[in-house]
Amino acid sequence: MKNVLLLFTIFISHMAIAQMKDTSKYVLVIHGGAGTILKKNMSPEKEEMYKQTLQKALNAGEKILASGGIALDAVEAVVRILEDDPLFNAGKGAVFTNDGKNELDAAIMDGKTLKAGAIAGVMHIKNPISTARAVMERSEHVMMIGEGAEQFAKQNGAEMVDPSYFFTQERWDGLQKAKKADSLKKKADTVSKKAIRQLDNPDNKYGTVGAVALDKHGNLAAATSTGGMTNKRYNRVGDAPIIGAGTYANNATCAISGTGWGEYFIRLVMAKTVSDRMEYGNQSLNEAATDMIMKKLPSLGGDGGLIGVDKNGNITMPFCTEGMYRGYVKSTGETAVKIYKEE
Amino acid sequence: MKNVLLLFTIFISHMAIAQMKDTSKYVLVIHGGAGTILKKNMSPEKEEMYKQTLQKALNAGEKILASGGIALDAVEAVVRILEDDPLFNAGKGAVFTNDGKNELDAAIMDGKTLKAGAIAGVMHIKNPISTARAVMERSEHVMMIGEGAEQFAKQNGAEMVDPSYFFTQERWDGLQKAKKADSLKKKADTVSKKAIRQLDNPDNKYGTVGAVALDKHGNLAAATSTGGMTNKRYNRVGDAPIIGAGTYANNATCAISGTGWGEYFIRLVMAKTVSDRMEYGNQSLNEAATDMIMKKLPSLGGDGGLIGVDKNGNITMPFCTEGMYRGYVKSTGETAVKIYKEE
Repeated sequence: MKNVLLLFTIFISHMAIAQMKDTSKYVLVIHGGAGTILKKNMSPEKEEMYKQTLQKALNAGEKILASGGIALDAVEAVVRILEDDPLFNAGKGAVFTNDGKNELDAAIMDGKTLKAGAIAGVMHIKNPISTARAVMERSEHVMMIGEGAEQFAKQNGAEMVDPSYFFTQERWDGLQKAKKADSLKKKADTVSKKAIRQLDNPDNKYGTVGAVALDKHGNLAAATSTGGMTNKRYNRVGDAPIIGAGTYANNATCAISGTGWGEYFIRLVMAKTVSDRMEYGNQSLNEAATDMIMKKLPSLGGDGGLIGVDKNGNITMPFCTEGMYRGYVKSTGETAVKIYKEE
Repeated sequence: MKNVLLLFTIFISHMAIAQMKDTSKYVLVIHGGAGTILKKNMSPEKEEMYKQTLQKALNAGEKILASGGIALDAVEAVVRILEDDPLFNAGKGAVFTNDGKNELDAAIMDGKTLKAGAIAGVMHIKNPISTARAVMERSEHVMMIGEGAEQFAKQNGAEMVDPSYFFTQERWDGLQKAKKADSLKKKADTVSKKAIRQLDNPDNKYGTVGAVALDKHGNLAAATSTGGMTNKRYNRVGDAPIIGAGTYANNATCAISGTGWGEYFIRLVMAKTVSDRMEYGNQSLNEAATDMIMKKLPSLGGDGGLIGVDKNGNITMPFCTEGMYRGYVKSTGETAVKIYKEE
C-alpha cells in the first residue's frame, strides 16, 4: 500500500510539474487600429478617451490572464470591449459602406489547437468576435459569411441587434466626406494611389481592433475585429477575417493581429509569414514583424501595423503609419498605452 | 549616323536578352479535385471522360504557354474549361448546399506582382475564376463576397446565368444522400470524425479544380475554383478563395493550388507555408509540399492534395487521399494525366 501511495505521489508531482511550466508568465498586447493619427489633430479630451478604453480593455484581459484564465478568453474579452466602444472601427462605431451599411468582419485563432473561426459581411451581430469564436468551437467550419453567418450566430445565442445600433454620426459624416472626395476624384485626370486612398479615407485611419495573448499555460491566441474601409463597395472583405493574413496564432511561434490596408496584408499573407520566418528562418518575432511591416508592406505600396507576442512572451508592435492605438501588459508589471510614433 | 545605328542595335539586343531569359521553358500543372477516388468504383467510360477533359484543359493551357502567353491567361483558361464541365465540382456541376443552392468560390494570383483576386458565395456567375481575375485587375480590392461580388461581375461584363444552369442530377442526388446520412448521424451516439465526413460527402470527393503555371517569361500564376462541400450550411467558405490557403503564387518561390478538406488548409495556411518553407527554410518545392500534405495535414485530421510548380519548373502533386484528378505538361514534351495513387 505504501508503494502504491509513493508511486501515486510521484505520478501526481510529475503531472504537476508538466502542467505548471512557466505558470507565472502572461502577456497581453492590444491594438485599436493604425493610420495617420497625429497629435496635432487630436484634442486632449479625445486622446484621453482612447487611452481610457485601451486601458480598460487591457485591465479586463489582464484580470483573466492573471487569474490563470486562457489566452482565448482574454483576447475575446479585450476585443468585445473595443467593439462596444464607438471610438473604434469595429462593432458599434464601424465605418459605413458605400450604400450606408455597416458590414463587420472578425476572426479568432487558438495557438494550441490551430483551430480558428471567422465571419465576414455580417450586419446584425453585436459582437462579431464572439460569433467567430462560436464558429471555431461549435461548428466544423472555419469561415462563414453574410446571412449564413448570422443564422449560425442566432442559433448559437449571439446578441443580435438592429443595424441602427452600429450608427455613429462621426462615421456617417466620414462616409459623406468620402463620397464627396470620390466624385471629385473622378474629375481629376491623374491622382496618385496614395492621394486616392487619403481621399477615400478622410479620417485617415484604418480602424481595426485586435488582441494577442500568452497565458500562464503557455498558450497563444489572436483575435481581430473590424468594420473594414469607409465607403467600401461590393461586399469587400479585408484581411481581418482571413486566417494567416490579419489573424494567426500558433503555440510553436507567435500570435499576430494586423491593422492596415487589408488588401496588402492579404497579398503578403502577413501574419503567417511572420510565424513562418520564425519557424523556418530562425528569425525573432521582432525581426520578422519589423521587416514585414517596415519593408515588405511599403514596398508593395501598402501600410499599417501589427501586434505580436511569441511563445516566450516577447512582444512587437511595428507600424509604418503615423500612429497606432496600442498597449500591452506583462506579468512582470511592465505596461504601457501608446498612440503616436514618438512616444 | 552609323554610330547611332550601332548603339541602337546594341541597346535593342540587350533589351532582347533581358526579355528573353529562359524563353523556351514553360510548365502547366492542373487538378480536378482529390478524394476517395478508387478504380473499383469507376466505370471505364467515366474514367475516360475525366481524362478527356483534363487533357482538353492541359491542351488549352499549353497552347497559350507555348506561344509565349502569360501564366495568368493559361491558368484562367484551364479553370474555365474545368468549371464548364459538369464532372467537376466547380461552375456547372457544383455541389449543392444544405438548402439546395450552388455557392461558388474562386481565386487567382499573379506571382509577378503578388496581386490577387477572390470571390466567395456567388450564385449567378458562369465562370467565377474570370470574375476573380477581374477583381484582381479592375478593382482596388482582393476579395468580394455574395451579392456585392455579383454586382461587380455584372458591371465588368461577366456572363451571368440563372442558378438552374449549375444544376446536375448527380449532385442533386448527392445532396439528398448527404441529408439522409445527416439525419442518421444525429441518431448515432458517437461517430468518429472520419465517419461523419464520409457520411456528409457520399461521393467521397472534395471537388475543387485548379491550375498552376510557369510561363516563358519566368512568371508564375495559380488559380482555384470550387462549389465547396456538399450539404454545406451557413454560407461556409473553404480554402479555395483564401489567398495563402488554397491559392498562392510568388515568382520568388512557387505557385500552388490546393484541393481537400478546406478547413484544414485554412488553419495550416497551406499554400503560403509551402512557399515560406522554400523561401525561409531552403526546402525544395517537393520537400515542402510533401511534408505539408503527407504529415502536417493528416496530423491535424484533414486530408487532400495540392499541385505546385516552382520558379525553375519543378513540379509536385502530393495527396494523402485515394486519388486526385491531375495532369501536367512541360515544354520538354513530358506530359501525363493521372487519377489514382498507383499510377
